[in-house]
Amino acid sequence: MNKLFPRIAIIGRRRTPDVLVSVLQLAEFLREQGLAVYLDGEAVPTGHAHDFPLLKRDAIGSQVDLAIVIGGDGTLLGIARLLAGYEVPIIGVNQGRLGFMTDVPLDRMLSVIQGMLEGRFVPEERMLLETTVMRDGAVIASGSAFNDVVFSRGALGAMIEFEIFIDNQFVYSQRSDGLIVSTPTGSTAYALAAGGPILHPSVPALALVPICPQSMSNRPIAVSDRAEIEFVLLRGFESRVHFDGQFHVDLQETDRVLIRRSERALTLLHPLGYNYYDVLRQKLHWGEQLL
Amino acid sequence: MNKLFPRIAIIGRRRTPDVLVSVLQLAEFLREQGLAVYLDGEAVPTGHAHDFPLLKRDAIGSQVDLAIVIGGDGTLLGIARLLAGYEVPIIGVNQGRLGFMTDVPLDRMLSVIQGMLEGRFVPEERMLLETTVMRDGAVIASGSAFNDVVFSRGALGAMIEFEIFIDNQFVYSQRSDGLIVSTPTGSTAYALAAGGPILHPSVPALALVPICPQSMSNRPIAVSDRAEIEFVLLRGFESRVHFDGQFHVDLQETDRVLIRRSERALTLLHPLGYNYYDVLRQKLHWGEQLL
Amino acid sequence: MNKLFPRIAIIGRRRTPDVLVSVLQLAEFLREQGLAVYLDGEAVPTGHAHDFPLLKRDAIGSQVDLAIVIGGDGTLLGIARLLAGYEVPIIGVNQGRLGFMTDVPLDRMLSVIQGMLEGRFVPEERMLLETTVMRDGAVIASGSAFNDVVFSRGALGAMIEFEIFIDNQFVYSQRSDGLIVSTPTGSTAYALAAGGPILHPSVPALALVPICPQSMSNRPIAVSDRAEIEFVLLRGFESRVHFDGQFHVDLQETDRVLIRRSERALTLLHPLGYNYYDVLRQKLHWGEQLL
Amino acid sequence: MNKLFPRIAIIGRRRTPDVLVSVLQLAEFLREQGLAVYLDGEAVPTGHAHDFPLLKRDAIGSQVDLAIVIGGDGTLLGIARLLAGYEVPIIGVNQGRLGFMTDVPLDRMLSVIQGMLEGRFVPEERMLLETTVMRDGAVIASGSAFNDVVFSRGALGAMIEFEIFIDNQFVYSQRSDGLIVSTPTGSTAYALAAGGPILHPSVPALALVPICPQSMSNRPIAVSDRAEIEFVLLRGFESRVHFDGQFHVDLQETDRVLIRRSERALTLLHPLGYNYYDVLRQKLHWGEQLL
Repeated sequence: MNKLFPRIAIIGRRRTPDVLVSVLQLAEFLREQGLAVYLDGEAVPTGHAHDFPLLKRDAIGSQVDLAIVIGGDGTLLGIARLLAGYEVPIIGVNQGRLGFMTDVPLDRMLSVIQGMLEGRFVPEERMLLETTVMRDGAVIASGSAFNDVVFSRGALGAMIEFEIFIDNQFVYSQRSDGLIVSTPTGSTAYALAAGGPILHPSVPALALVPICPQSMSNRPIAVSDRAEIEFVLLRGFESRVHFDGQFHVDLQETDRVLIRRSERALTLLHPLGYNYYDVLRQKLHWGEQLL
Repeated sequence: MNKLFPRIAIIGRRRTPDVLVSVLQLAEFLREQGLAVYLDGEAVPTGHAHDFPLLKRDAIGSQVDLAIVIGGDGTLLGIARLLAGYEVPIIGVNQGRLGFMTDVPLDRMLSVIQGMLEGRFVPEERMLLETTVMRDGAVIASGSAFNDVVFSRGALGAMIEFEIFIDNQFVYSQRSDGLIVSTPTGSTAYALAAGGPILHPSVPALALVPICPQSMSNRPIAVSDRAEIEFVLLRGFESRVHFDGQFHVDLQETDRVLIRRSERALTLLHPLGYNYYDVLRQKLHWGEQLL
Repeated sequence: MNKLFPRIAIIGRRRTPDVLVSVLQLAEFLREQGLAVYLDGEAVPTGHAHDFPLLKRDAIGSQVDLAIVIGGDGTLLGIARLLAGYEVPIIGVNQGRLGFMTDVPLDRMLSVIQGMLEGRFVPEERMLLETTVMRDGAVIASGSAFNDVVFSRGALGAMIEFEIFIDNQFVYSQRSDGLIVSTPTGSTAYALAAGGPILHPSVPALALVPICPQSMSNRPIAVSDRAEIEFVLLRGFESRVHFDGQFHVDLQETDRVLIRRSERALTLLHPLGYNYYDVLRQKLHWGEQLL
Repeated sequence: MNKLFPRIAIIGRRRTPDVLVSVLQLAEFLREQGLAVYLDGEAVPTGHAHDFPLLKRDAIGSQVDLAIVIGGDGTLLGIARLLAGYEVPIIGVNQGRLGFMTDVPLDRMLSVIQGMLEGRFVPEERMLLETTVMRDGAVIASGSAFNDVVFSRGALGAMIEFEIFIDNQFVYSQRSDGLIVSTPTGSTAYALAAGGPILHPSVPALALVPICPQSMSNRPIAVSDRAEIEFVLLRGFESRVHFDGQFHVDLQETDRVLIRRSERALTLLHPLGYNYYDVLRQKLHWGEQLL
């Protein structure tokens, strides 16, 4: 039998008993089909592994052909950054409520995944951002993000002041609480709360969304995914740059931060019949079809 | 001598004496260089043509290699729809205040244009939308637009109700004052007033921007420029669809309107050193460079 | 027995069979208690009046002590403008879904209204706007509104241009699709769709909310309910002023429109336990109590 | 001679040489008119006092009949909180650019203030907020604010979750970056950047403005200035409450914060001819009068 994905890792949200049960259920199901199954060492305590091999999260990418994530979009994003570079596609199963990326419903998990393993899936590529933080001409840090790179003021602070350059062209200086540089994937996350536009995943663009800008004409702008975005911090006590809201780097005045699209990407696998707008409509309570 | 653009039409804003003066000044300047110069019959009264041949606007496309527009973005848009299909590039000279597309300053018109005719220009492509209005299965009208296709309620009326499909996938139903489908070019026009995002001209996307939607979660969304957008009017007395705000078609309930990107496009020529963000920053009063 | 409201009119949404049934059910219930009951001649066809006297809507105010409206907020607003000046309070029964003003649920109508007739109600006053349209120094029309006075552009048209004065102080000139002058009652209607703030009914203020203003700094402003607002149309083909979205007056350039709070008001009676925020939260899907 | 304000304190922005010069110039001018003049010990170094008595800022309220502030709105707000309770009115002189409250232009300072001391002024009252922070049933801190009380998330953190009650009625639960409770004075400050409405100073209302709320229907709401607002922190690491952006209190989960209007207020004195809308229009670049 020709298997599309002979080696599969199952990753779950940490410390969530319901997820642990689903991980093991799916693992048994896949093992019965003769697949090599590895479990997420962070979601599965050693004594509960039922003889499945456990992998550290950063070792998964080199060992498997497919990763299945059970949890929410946050769990999926966390593992996606670790898999980037290994060309391992991801299937997301939502534990609880529908996610933008975790779109396989838990209650039909086994039958839907069986179909997907037989080739009935729709692949979709999601871009990754690579960011370099420069101080005094030297690289001091770097980070990557599938959702967004967020520049923020400190907790105490006044607004920050910064300048933006795109492809070495000056765009604007701004005083605000911060700035979100968002991929289409991130456009339905924090950027949406800050007033940004929704970017369909197929749109090759990044959105720059100001957070509470002092000037009311500082509106969101979408630029090409091929653009190189440069942020220069002019003033800002305890300012930081955050990556997918999962880790951050402290910034000092005159630091320069470069953001560009990575050559690596995430491949999501959706069940047949997947429709981005269905998810969007359900999450945003948009109007249903009337006729 | 090898001329890039041997035949040039000069178009001007109608009934504007200052523009007439500039048109004639530029015409003499180009004639002295041995170029064949044609003037816009709508901007130049017969008795003022100084022996230059006058052309009707819809005849310009087939006669010339380049069109130079003196006026504002509205004048440029009007002629651009007529030139679409002839592959005639356009240079815009702003009469008065800086335009998004009319970016050659009048006071340096002759020297800048001379340089551009010698090849010192940056070409930029702007997409065109093609729209078909269907009633009872038959095409009843069509229209094209560089800025936007706008669906609006009647003057008297209550909100309109409609459904949107993209690539035959249902997106949402909506009650609102209307909907703007905007190109990147149009994203700094009416769509911006309605709360839409700015789309850089290099972003291959269309923005759908609701006008005063009843539901607050009906936010702007940018979709691929390859998407086919279908609007279905469910309810709306005296509803209309407008093209670039320059002409319109009356709609009836159950009419379907299809919008897709045209294979034709507008080629704008900008002077060397052109920077889209400079124009944007100046028009929107964004912050200048501080360091 | 001391009756608070010996004479009661029941008004219903027109041409709505379900409403007719509810009107008659409530009428019988009140007649059994010895009250004088009048029915709305527009909601009840002559042959269906069951011996109850029918009243024309504009005759109701002078005949009764209380009006009970069965329908939606629109029906209630329509009768409220006719009752203004008679000091007849109104109870609203929602037929179908919860309204901002029609807050007695239909399925508990009889018991709730019985309690209210015995004095278990919370009165609340809602302000009325009075508007005068002036042309060449003479009054050419007037109108009143509980929700909003809306200035709009024509269906074909470009944006309108106007100036606003408050208490004879110049406020701004503006180019936009129009302007909404809203009471707190209207702040959850059209003004909300245009981006205006919610004003609690107890706030003695009017909101001026621009509709798609060309300048992004033209933000909503709330002014004192004692302010006199003057709108001067500078430019606008087929521009109109609308009152509660129910009738309108055509405007010409240089027309002046004066808006001020009326000395008359609407008294709504709510059931005991009424909470404005409950209604708001339910209508806007705001977050429920978590602890 | 009958003097309206026999004892006057002059307060200036700290560590600003230009302001020091203006403070001394004004002081000499007032002394020549026989007035008792006190200088701000924080703006005037001891050796530069020219024999004028220096006062600590918290001693000013009990010693004078009028305070004149030279600087910006921030300086004025700082002293206003200290004067609250003493019924000492304030005149604001703007050093540099026009402020919302510092509206006497520096270049006409002496003549304008002379007129105001002779009674040619317009008094205006600005409300003060009083805030109490409760933990486990006990008051742990309190603060007052003329602009705003701002609840914010920590620098690292995820959104905060909280509940709002008004006059003991539950309003909503919310996940967001924070919440601004703003006076009309503060409505043109941070609240405006967060998308809040402008409240004219004569409107007796407070605005609740969410900062980047997760739910798009969480819109700004204005409530009566007599309302008691209660904020309950459900979840939020390193969350804080800020007063006029000048000091803050750290919050823990389940802390309750009560906000109500103070009985004390600030009396601003404006020059005759003062027009709030002129200031607003100038600061927000609103359209000027066209006819």
